[in-house]
Amino acid sequence: MTLAQDPTALKALHEELSQQLKQQTANRLSLDLTRGKPSAEQLSLSNALEDQIRGDFKSRDGVDTRNYGGIRGLSEARELGAELLGVDAAQVIAFGNSSLALMHLAATTALNKGLWGNERRWHNSPGVKMLTPVPGYDRHFSLCEQLGIEMVCVPMLDTGPDMAVAANLAAADPSIKGIWCVPKYSNPTGCIYSDATVASMAELPSKAAADDFVVFWDNAYAVHDLVQPPATLASLAEAATAAGNDDHILQFASTSKITFAGAGLSFIAASDLVLKQLEQQIGFSTIGPDKVNQLRHARFLDGRLQAHMAAHAELLRPKFDLVQQSLKEGLAGWDIATWTVPKGGYFVSLDTQDNMASAVIAKAKAAGLALTAAGATYPYGADPNDCNVRIAPTFASLDELHAAMQVFLLCLKLTALEKRLAI
Amino acid sequence: MTLAQDPTALKALHEELSQQLKQQTANRLSLDLTRGKPSAEQLSLSNALEDQIRGDFKSRDGVDTRNYGGIRGLSEARELGAELLGVDAAQVIAFGNSSLALMHLAATTALNKGLWGNERRWHNSPGVKMLTPVPGYDRHFSLCEQLGIEMVCVPMLDTGPDMAVAANLAAADPSIKGIWCVPKYSNPTGCIYSDATVASMAELPSKAAADDFVVFWDNAYAVHDLVQPPATLASLAEAATAAGNDDHILQFASTSKITFAGAGLSFIAASDLVLKQLEQQIGFSTIGPDKVNQLRHARFLDGRLQAHMAAHAELLRPKFDLVQQSLKEGLAGWDIATWTVPKGGYFVSLDTQDNMASAVIAKAKAAGLALTAAGATYPYGADPNDCNVRIAPTFASLDELHAAMQVFLLCLKLTALEKRLAI
Repeated sequence: MTLAQDPTALKALHEELSQQLKQQTANRLSLDLTRGKPSAEQLSLSNALEDQIRGDFKSRDGVDTRNYGGIRGLSEARELGAELLGVDAAQVIAFGNSSLALMHLAATTALNKGLWGNERRWHNSPGVKMLTPVPGYDRHFSLCEQLGIEMVCVPMLDTGPDMAVAANLAAADPSIKGIWCVPKYSNPTGCIYSDATVASMAELPSKAAADDFVVFWDNAYAVHDLVQPPATLASLAEAATAAGNDDHILQFASTSKITFAGAGLSFIAASDLVLKQLEQQIGFSTIGPDKVNQLRHARFLDGRLQAHMAAHAELLRPKFDLVQQSLKEGLAGWDIATWTVPKGGYFVSLDTQDNMASAVIAKAKAAGLALTAAGATYPYGADPNDCNVRIAPTFASLDELHAAMQVFLLCLKLTALEKRLAI
Repeated sequence: MTLAQDPTALKALHEELSQQLKQQTANRLSLDLTRGKPSAEQLSLSNALEDQIRGDFKSRDGVDTRNYGGIRGLSEARELGAELLGVDAAQVIAFGNSSLALMHLAATTALNKGLWGNERRWHNSPGVKMLTPVPGYDRHFSLCEQLGIEMVCVPMLDTGPDMAVAANLAAADPSIKGIWCVPKYSNPTGCIYSDATVASMAELPSKAAADDFVVFWDNAYAVHDLVQPPATLASLAEAATAAGNDDHILQFASTSKITFAGAGLSFIAASDLVLKQLEQQIGFSTIGPDKVNQLRHARFLDGRLQAHMAAHAELLRPKFDLVQQSLKEGLAGWDIATWTVPKGGYFVSLDTQDNMASAVIAKAKAAGLALTAAGATYPYGADPNDCNVRIAPTFASLDELHAAMQVFLLCLKLTALEKRLAI
């Protein structure tokens, strides 16, 4: 059964698939593949966080974690961040439950005060822009929008952002001040930046026309591997040191998809000079992070991070496998979409033929299946080819995911048929 | 023994007190009365926070608190904030561990986006100013400094800020956009805003020349009473409704000095219109607060807030009594300082004779006693009469506090003698 068939057969097929979708809709579905949320089973892997204190609130260094203070966080929490990011604990600030908040802080500091304790700050430029590899993470984009940072797109390749394009753009325009990266299991494509990409990224601040260019390295999925042995990511920190750009990279991580999504820890790593500026800025809006939660986390994950992530992978692998199998079987012979086969992270990125994604997503919504809004993986919600659909299979149960994929496939095929038949 | 004695006797007294101070210094003191931190004993009153989850992470509304989401916070946490602030839970956002962070957010929102979903925002004015009752809270001042908000001082009376001065200033200058208040047990004077002050405060936005004037009502010590029956504070919310200024007041509270100083909850209360703007802005930098900690707090404090605060008072009263007794006995006949007798809160505010405070604080530091930096209770660290010393007696043990007060009294007396003798 292919799309090369004659119109009459295509119409019959459309009728058949429409009937199937109607049956699904009659089931009053409420399916959701929108956001990269851990499932309840995954969250339960960390329930023992609640058993870590046992009356002992003192950190290893003797800090009473219940009281105020300590902007940089507990030593043991900083070590956890260092483990995630592959840097020295001295370069890490361990903070609250949101790495997005740290990115927000870093961007506002770069804009208003500068990261280097001197006169360099982004707001000295008449307009401020950042490079955004696309498709990418919608919350990076909305943060830019809120702060009035114009976004300039760079195509994503299987090896990460197209670094030739990024370098040319940055070299040509001094108002381009930085780039957003999700270097491992990128959101949404799942690609891993190649060694060459990491090396080029570390050199990018030297190539940029701006002298205050910053790489925002959001390593959200640093240890979120689905298969063994896990993929490796070259060290941006080491490459940046070699390139003399230590002061121009900011690395982020969190435990949001390791322990509790809403009640974890976040981390930022930077050079001594930059950490000092960030610490000062943090101090204007808080007296310190929640150190009790840092202590819970450090104790809970001490020496067992790898095993813990393997347990996540056990729960996630069947879901990613189901998505792959559904797409492969369901779309065999159709030639209407391509998709990624990630080895970790939280998403499958699917590209339809041009000008179909928003119609597919609208059709799915009508059938009771919520998908990430069309265009969400592009700045300003503007997917130029209207083709990208981000599938987030982690939160749903296997049964729900199976039902969701069937609905999705029907919507995708029906949209393709309607396009072909011009109905 | 008074300062009216002849110079020879004064010199002999100076020699005697110097010797006493030297003895104290020889003890290698490390005493600290700088910050309003709860003691370990106070923190231990809330250790049972760790026993609240017991495997049940679901909120009353069925929310899995471990996962992402819910910018406004859990219903039961919002109710706790409502109880502290005397407002309806629907007007409250329950957030993370720092009310200062919420004040920071509110101020930056007022500056950059406005609080009302229209074109009114502080940055439309060429310069932005806020009224700061003095002496006041140093972190309000540093927040203003960071954000480039100029501070205009208003004298504190026993009844709160001098509202006639505040109204005249606000009416005369459209760049004056708000006022900072700590209405109950004010930091540092301990005063409670009178009913007339609260009424005037609610009307202040109407009197201001700016149409985007905001009262920042930092009710940090709402339930932090030392004596029974507790002092009462009139409702700003009710007065603001009567004055038609609901959209121009922001109320803040936290559990920082109720449960764990560094691991508590914070709250902001505002009108529907303003909450909506704040919620939107919060959403740019986080996917939600730590709801597990909100659940711990709501369960722990449910129905027992009053008893819990009474237990705090039991621990704090002897410390405040010791400070009062030390000052009363030690300064009898000296006539070199006046001080407050607070009925709650965390501070005693002492005014020396003019031009002595920085010398007293420096002398104490040399003797091993840390006091809040001279001028800290004034914007830009500039105490015009160099007279205010903020004493924070809560963190130290009774023994430490006794030693600290003896050192403080010696330093105060020696400074007074040196001033008199011009040495």
